[in-house]
Amino acid sequence: MPEPIRIFVTGGTFDKEYNELTGELFFQETHVPDMLRLGRSHLDVVIETLMMIDSLQMTEADRHRILDRCRECAESHIVITHGTDTMEQTAALLGRSIADKTIVLTGAMVPYTFGSSDGMFNLGTALAFVQTLGVGVYVAMNGKCFTWNNVRKDRQHGIFQALETNT
Amino acid sequence: MPEPIRIFVTGGTFDKEYNELTGELFFQETHVPDMLRLGRSHLDVVIETLMMIDSLQMTEADRHRILDRCRECAESHIVITHGTDTMEQTAALLGRSIADKTIVLTGAMVPYTFGSSDGMFNLGTALAFVQTLGVGVYVAMNGKCFTWNNVRKDRQHGIFQALETNT
Amino acid sequence: MPEPIRIFVTGGTFDKEYNELTGELFFQETHVPDMLRLGRSHLDVVIETLMMIDSLQMTEADRHRILDRCRECAESHIVITHGTDTMEQTAALLGRSIADKTIVLTGAMVPYTFGSSDGMFNLGTALAFVQTLGVGVYVAMNGKCFTWNNVRKDRQHGIFQALETNT
Amino acid sequence: MPEPIRIFVTGGTFDKEYNELTGELFFQETHVPDMLRLGRSHLDVVIETLMMIDSLQMTEADRHRILDRCRECAESHIVITHGTDTMEQTAALLGRSIADKTIVLTGAMVPYTFGSSDGMFNLGTALAFVQTLGVGVYVAMNGKCFTWNNVRKDRQHGIFQALETNT
Repeated sequence: MPEPIRIFVTGGTFDKEYNELTGELFFQETHVPDMLRLGRSHLDVVIETLMMIDSLQMTEADRHRILDRCRECAESHIVITHGTDTMEQTAALLGRSIADKTIVLTGAMVPYTFGSSDGMFNLGTALAFVQTLGVGVYVAMNGKCFTWNNVRKDRQHGIFQALETNT
Repeated sequence: MPEPIRIFVTGGTFDKEYNELTGELFFQETHVPDMLRLGRSHLDVVIETLMMIDSLQMTEADRHRILDRCRECAESHIVITHGTDTMEQTAALLGRSIADKTIVLTGAMVPYTFGSSDGMFNLGTALAFVQTLGVGVYVAMNGKCFTWNNVRKDRQHGIFQALETNT
Repeated sequence: MPEPIRIFVTGGTFDKEYNELTGELFFQETHVPDMLRLGRSHLDVVIETLMMIDSLQMTEADRHRILDRCRECAESHIVITHGTDTMEQTAALLGRSIADKTIVLTGAMVPYTFGSSDGMFNLGTALAFVQTLGVGVYVAMNGKCFTWNNVRKDRQHGIFQALETNT
Repeated sequence: MPEPIRIFVTGGTFDKEYNELTGELFFQETHVPDMLRLGRSHLDVVIETLMMIDSLQMTEADRHRILDRCRECAESHIVITHGTDTMEQTAALLGRSIADKTIVLTGAMVPYTFGSSDGMFNLGTALAFVQTLGVGVYVAMNGKCFTWNNVRKDRQHGIFQALETNT
């Protein structure tokens, strides 16, 4: 794959940090470049931060901005870091709209900066899936890969799973 | 993929620990189950520790034991954690001998217990590659996937790369 | 010092954890025993959890419970882990009321579970100060030790400092 | 204490790092400034690296260099980071030679860079002891403080303890 992988950063738990003055979680810069460095990744990637927000705050306008950038960008292999709460909604918009690129959304349940995170693991799976899967829109969470129209977050247990019946 | 993924543990930097009494690195139990738990993996896996050794100490008998277990086990999707120094040799033995399974070898440059490791990232890529790649033997390092007959470790820089000319 | 050191746990940032389902911080068990183990402490200590709360939620009744336990306990050397927001208020109540014990309050700006914390450092200073200082009530933060009637938290910068003029 | 605390760095496990190319431990820069920053220390300190060696490699010339710098420096409160294997020997040389300064030696059983370390805890205790103890030479390990002529490392268990009979 001579072409680079495009990584779009949108925020989510992945990139949350702890504000020690207020005791609240907030966003600063993305940690994706640090994570790739620590992961000793030598993949050719282009990282672009589209927004730094909790996915519960994501508006339809935000989702369309992600869609537009996925369409516009030169690369045909795209990883999107995203909050887990509405990841399936963004995946659905992209899945219904884009038919010629491989797009993998991923996120984390625990912020990277809090250590022991699932972020490193998920980023690894997403970058592997995007290199090997065919055209389509996918969610990479819990070590698994789901197609955009067959995934939901079980909020009670914090895990992603396939729908009971595929449509 | 209803069948579980078999994970064979052989040791390597991945699983090294620090002995605070002697100041030396040593092997204890594998950390793969902990890593899968922290990665919030919900993949169906069967973990089996074959040996806990530095891959520079790995004998031909050891490599044949790995080969035998890959052949014997019921699963057709296998991830092997392995020291990086002779990973390409074990991959070559498996690649020349097994033609009906998907096998991905991976490892780490920094022990998991030392934090900030590439282990979580590599384990993520290996588990994704093994689910999506066809039959064959592969090395998953540095975010990339190499076929067994087209990979070498650049010892000076500690990275894996494809050979200049593919054979 | 043949007598053990009493450690009273009251919660605070020190012991906060991240709830990956809700994205909120919460309290579970105290991490003080883990921290002492990782610090390779061989001090003789008795740990007692009095409450697990944010110090902004601490009522006068809570503070009097701390006071009562400090008075009642057999030990004359006491460390109290406490949220930083009202640490000076609890210190003042204890300082005005107890004249025959050495009591050191400490806390953290970053939860222990988020890594890279000041908690291990502060716990170290508090346990050292309590062994060496005379009777009195002190706050151990930022590497320094303040007497109860000469300390305030600079909320803008998140650091503790002596008052301009001592009373 | 208006005068700064002098910190002499000599290496030891405290500052060891993992060389991912060779799999060996080595010394680079000291981590003491990072540790003080993470500990949110606001103490006035002057840090000086005297050497970066394993204390098993420390020669009598090295120890005399430490002694000379302790004598020469303007500060009367000194913390020395030191490998644990010969810490008691350096303490003994300083203890027999210096009678007008407060000097505390400390170290770690696990490198700071490996996480979960005792380094942050020990550095906290050492900086607290040096502010509160009178003139003398001390070893701060395992949460405790030992005078130079009443301390030995139990190599089997990796802990420091007082001698059976004080001389």
